[in-house]
Amino acid sequence: MIVVRNYREARAQPVIEEPGVTVRWLVSDQDKGPSFALRLYEMEPGATTTAQSHYWEHEVFVLAGRGVVAGKEGEIPLGEGDVVYVPPAERHRFVNRGDEVLCFLMVLPIAQHTSLPGE
Amino acid sequence: MIVVRNYREARAQPVIEEPGVTVRWLVSDQDKGPSFALRLYEMEPGATTTAQSHYWEHEVFVLAGRGVVAGKEGEIPLGEGDVVYVPPAERHRFVNRGDEVLCFLMVLPIAQHTSLPGE
Repeated sequence: MIVVRNYREARAQPVIEEPGVTVRWLVSDQDKGPSFALRLYEMEPGATTTAQSHYWEHEVFVLAGRGVVAGKEGEIPLGEGDVVYVPPAERHRFVNRGDEVLCFLMVLPIAQHTSLPGE
Repeated sequence: MIVVRNYREARAQPVIEEPGVTVRWLVSDQDKGPSFALRLYEMEPGATTTAQSHYWEHEVFVLAGRGVVAGKEGEIPLGEGDVVYVPPAERHRFVNRGDEVLCFLMVLPIAQHTSLPGE
Protein backbone atom coordinates (compact mmCIF):
# COMPACT_ATOMS: atom_id res chain seq x y z
CA MET A 1 0.00 0.00 0.00
CA ILE A 2 1.26 3.45 -0.88
CA VAL A 3 1.70 5.55 2.26
CA VAL A 4 1.64 9.34 2.40
CA ARG A 5 2.39 11.29 5.57
CA ASN A 6 3.57 14.80 6.26
CA TYR A 7 6.97 15.08 7.87
CA ARG A 8 5.49 17.29 10.60
CA GLU A 9 3.46 14.27 11.82
CA ALA A 10 6.62 12.33 12.60
CA ARG A 11 7.83 12.89 16.16
CA ALA A 12 10.95 15.05 16.48
CA GLN A 13 13.16 12.90 18.71
CA PRO A 14 15.99 14.62 20.58
CA VAL A 15 19.39 13.11 19.84
CA ILE A 16 20.77 12.43 23.32
CA GLU A 17 24.43 13.03 22.55
CA GLU A 18 23.77 16.05 20.31
CA PRO A 19 22.10 18.96 22.18
CA GLY A 20 19.82 21.06 19.97
CA VAL A 21 19.46 18.30 17.37
CA THR A 22 16.26 16.37 16.66
CA VAL A 23 15.54 13.67 14.12
CA ARG A 24 12.25 12.63 12.55
CA TRP A 25 12.07 9.18 10.96
CA LEU A 26 10.07 9.70 7.74
CA VAL A 27 10.56 6.23 6.30
CA SER A 28 12.05 3.54 8.52
CA ASP A 29 12.35 -0.23 8.78
CA GLN A 30 8.77 -0.21 10.06
CA ASP A 31 7.68 0.51 6.49
CA LYS A 32 9.34 -2.78 5.45
CA GLY A 33 11.23 -1.17 2.59
CA PRO A 34 14.21 -3.34 1.69
CA SER A 35 16.75 -0.66 0.83
CA PHE A 36 16.89 2.67 2.60
CA ALA A 37 15.48 4.94 5.28
CA LEU A 38 14.73 8.64 5.20
CA ARG A 39 15.21 10.99 8.15
CA LEU A 40 14.78 14.71 8.71
CA TYR A 41 17.21 16.58 10.97
CA GLU A 42 16.53 19.88 12.66
CA MET A 43 19.48 21.62 14.31
CA GLU A 44 19.22 24.72 16.49
CA PRO A 45 21.67 27.59 15.87
CA GLY A 46 25.10 26.56 17.17
CA ALA A 47 24.21 22.86 17.36
CA THR A 48 26.60 20.27 16.00
CA THR A 49 26.43 16.59 15.25
CA THR A 50 29.17 14.33 16.58
CA ALA A 51 31.94 13.54 14.11
CA GLN A 52 31.17 10.19 12.56
CA SER A 53 32.64 7.74 10.12
CA HIS A 54 30.86 4.62 8.86
CA TYR A 55 31.01 2.30 5.91
CA TRP A 56 27.80 3.47 4.28
CA GLU A 57 27.27 6.74 2.45
CA HIS A 58 25.05 9.67 3.34
CA GLU A 59 22.98 11.70 0.96
CA VAL A 60 21.64 14.95 2.33
CA PHE A 61 19.30 17.61 0.96
CA VAL A 62 19.16 20.96 2.78
CA LEU A 63 15.61 22.26 3.13
CA ALA A 64 16.27 25.45 5.14
CA GLY A 65 18.89 27.29 7.15
CA ARG A 66 22.65 27.70 6.90
CA GLY A 67 25.50 25.60 8.19
CA VAL A 68 28.56 23.62 7.24
CA VAL A 69 29.60 20.05 6.73
CA ALA A 70 33.07 19.49 8.15
CA GLY A 71 35.37 16.79 6.82
CA LYS A 72 39.06 16.11 6.37
CA GLU A 73 39.29 18.86 3.71
CA GLY A 74 37.81 21.46 6.06
CA GLU A 75 34.37 23.02 6.20
CA ILE A 76 32.00 23.39 3.25
CA PRO A 77 29.13 25.91 3.57
CA LEU A 78 25.57 24.65 3.23
CA GLY A 79 22.33 26.41 2.34
CA GLU A 80 18.87 25.76 0.93
CA GLY A 81 18.81 23.38 -2.03
CA ASP A 82 22.32 22.05 -1.43
CA VAL A 83 22.92 18.34 -1.86
CA VAL A 84 25.67 16.66 0.16
CA TYR A 85 27.25 13.37 -0.75
CA VAL A 86 29.38 11.84 2.03
CA PRO A 87 31.22 8.75 0.73
CA PRO A 88 31.57 5.62 2.85
CA ALA A 89 34.21 5.82 5.60
CA GLU A 90 34.53 9.60 5.31
CA ARG A 91 34.56 11.39 8.65
CA HIS A 92 31.97 14.16 8.77
CA ARG A 93 30.09 16.49 11.07
CA PHE A 94 27.26 18.98 10.51
CA VAL A 95 27.21 22.34 12.28
CA ASN A 96 24.53 25.03 12.27
CA ARG A 97 26.43 28.29 11.77
CA GLY A 98 23.32 30.35 11.05
CA ASP A 99 20.72 32.04 13.21
CA GLU A 100 17.77 29.88 12.23
CA VAL A 101 17.05 26.16 12.30
CA LEU A 102 19.14 24.11 9.89
CA CYS A 103 16.82 21.51 8.42
CA PHE A 104 17.92 18.69 6.12
CA LEU A 105 16.88 15.30 4.82
CA MET A 106 19.23 12.35 5.12
CA VAL A 107 19.07 9.04 3.29
CA LEU A 108 20.79 5.98 4.70
CA PRO A 109 20.72 2.23 4.10
CA ILE A 110 18.05 0.55 6.18
CA ALA A 111 20.20 -2.42 7.17
CA GLN A 112 22.07 -0.10 9.56
CA HIS A 113 18.94 0.65 11.53
CA THR A 114 16.91 -2.40 12.34
CA SER A 115 15.14 -0.57 15.13
CA LEU A 116 14.37 3.06 15.78
CA PRO A 117 16.61 4.81 18.27
CA GLY A 118 14.73 5.67 21.45
CA GLU A 119 11.73 3.53 20.52
CA MET B 1 35.81 13.49 -0.60
CA ILE B 2 32.62 15.14 0.61
CA VAL B 3 30.78 16.77 -2.29
CA VAL B 4 28.31 19.66 -2.01
CA ARG B 5 26.35 20.96 -4.98
CA ASN B 6 23.14 22.90 -5.33
CA TYR B 7 20.32 21.06 -7.04
CA ARG B 8 19.88 23.97 -9.44
CA GLU B 9 23.33 23.21 -10.90
CA ALA B 10 22.18 19.75 -12.04
CA ARG B 11 20.75 19.78 -15.56
CA ALA B 12 16.96 19.38 -15.75
CA GLN B 13 16.60 16.58 -18.29
CA PRO B 14 13.27 16.23 -20.07
CA VAL B 15 11.73 12.79 -19.65
CA ILE B 16 10.97 11.75 -23.23
CA GLU B 17 7.86 9.71 -22.55
CA GLU B 18 6.47 12.16 -19.96
CA PRO B 19 5.76 15.62 -21.43
CA GLY B 20 6.19 18.44 -18.91
CA VAL B 21 8.37 16.33 -16.63
CA THR B 22 12.08 16.91 -15.99
CA VAL B 23 14.50 15.08 -13.76
CA ARG B 24 17.74 16.27 -12.18
CA TRP B 25 20.20 13.64 -10.97
CA LEU B 26 21.50 14.98 -7.65
CA VAL B 27 23.48 11.92 -6.63
CA SER B 28 24.03 9.16 -9.19
CA ASP B 29 26.29 6.20 -9.90
CA GLN B 30 28.91 8.72 -10.99
CA ASP B 31 29.41 9.56 -7.33
CA LYS B 32 30.37 5.90 -6.73
CA GLY B 33 28.01 5.54 -3.78
CA PRO B 34 27.21 1.87 -3.24
CA SER B 35 23.59 2.09 -2.21
CA PHE B 36 21.20 4.68 -3.60
CA ALA B 37 20.66 7.61 -5.95
CA LEU B 38 18.80 10.86 -5.43
CA ARG B 39 16.76 12.63 -8.12
CA LEU B 40 14.63 15.76 -8.22
CA TYR B 41 11.48 15.80 -10.35
CA GLU B 42 9.75 18.92 -11.63
CA MET B 43 6.31 18.45 -13.20
CA GLU B 44 4.37 21.18 -15.01
CA PRO B 45 0.67 21.65 -14.18
CA GLY B 46 -1.28 18.77 -15.74
CA ALA B 47 1.80 16.63 -16.30
CA THR B 48 1.75 12.96 -15.33
CA THR B 49 4.35 10.24 -14.99
CA THR B 50 3.71 6.91 -16.67
CA ALA B 51 2.25 4.21 -14.43
CA GLN B 52 5.10 2.05 -13.24
CA SER B 53 5.69 -1.02 -11.16
CA HIS B 54 9.14 -2.33 -10.18
CA TYR B 55 10.64 -4.50 -7.51
CA TRP B 56 12.37 -1.69 -5.63
CA GLU B 57 10.73 0.90 -3.43
CA HIS B 58 10.43 4.64 -3.90
CA GLU B 59 10.77 7.26 -1.22
CA VAL B 60 9.57 10.71 -2.17
CA PHE B 61 9.66 14.08 -0.40
CA VAL B 62 7.49 16.87 -1.84
CA LEU B 63 9.29 20.22 -1.87
CA ALA B 64 6.61 22.38 -3.55
CA GLY B 65 3.34 22.25 -5.46
CA ARG B 66 0.25 20.08 -5.30
CA GLY B 67 -0.56 16.77 -6.94
CA VAL B 68 -1.53 13.18 -6.34
CA VAL B 69 0.05 9.78 -6.27
CA ALA B 70 -2.26 7.25 -7.90
CA GLY B 71 -2.17 3.57 -6.99
CA LYS B 72 -4.47 0.58 -6.74
CA GLU B 73 -6.33 2.19 -3.81
CA GLY B 74 -7.02 5.37 -5.78
CA GLU B 75 -5.47 8.81 -5.62
CA ILE B 76 -3.81 10.32 -2.55
CA PRO B 77 -3.31 14.10 -2.46
CA LEU B 78 0.22 15.47 -2.13
CA GLY B 79 1.55 18.82 -0.93
CA GLU B 80 4.64 20.44 0.55
CA GLY B 81 6.36 18.37 3.22
CA ASP B 82 4.58 15.14 2.33
CA VAL B 83 6.56 11.93 2.33
CA VAL B 84 5.51 9.10 0.02
CA TYR B 85 6.52 5.50 0.49
CA VAL B 86 5.81 3.28 -2.52
CA PRO B 87 6.51 -0.38 -1.65
CA PRO B 88 8.21 -2.72 -4.12
CA ALA B 89 5.96 -4.00 -6.95
CA GLU B 90 3.24 -1.41 -6.24
CA ARG B 91 1.91 0.26 -9.38
CA HIS B 92 2.04 4.06 -9.07
CA ARG B 93 1.82 7.29 -11.00
CA PHE B 94 2.36 10.95 -10.05
CA VAL B 95 0.10 13.69 -11.43
CA ASN B 96 0.36 17.47 -11.01
CA ARG B 97 -3.19 18.59 -10.22
CA GLY B 98 -2.17 22.10 -9.16
CA ASP B 99 -1.40 25.31 -11.02
CA GLU B 100 2.28 25.51 -10.15
CA VAL B 101 5.25 23.21 -10.62
CA LEU B 102 5.12 20.04 -8.52
CA CYS B 103 8.65 19.45 -7.25
CA PHE B 104 9.76 16.37 -5.35
CA LEU B 105 12.83 14.38 -4.38
CA MET B 106 12.98 10.66 -5.12
CA VAL B 107 15.36 8.09 -3.67
CA LEU B 108 16.01 4.82 -5.48
CA PRO B 109 18.56 2.01 -5.29
CA ILE B 110 21.56 2.77 -7.45
CA ALA B 111 21.85 -0.76 -8.83
CA GLN B 112 18.82 -0.01 -11.00
CA HIS B 113 20.59 2.83 -12.78
CA THR B 114 24.08 1.94 -13.84
CA SER B 115 24.06 4.78 -16.34
CA LEU B 116 22.23 8.07 -16.53
CA PRO B 117 19.24 8.18 -18.87
CA GLY B 118 19.94 10.32 -21.90
CA GLU B 119 23.65 10.62 -21.16
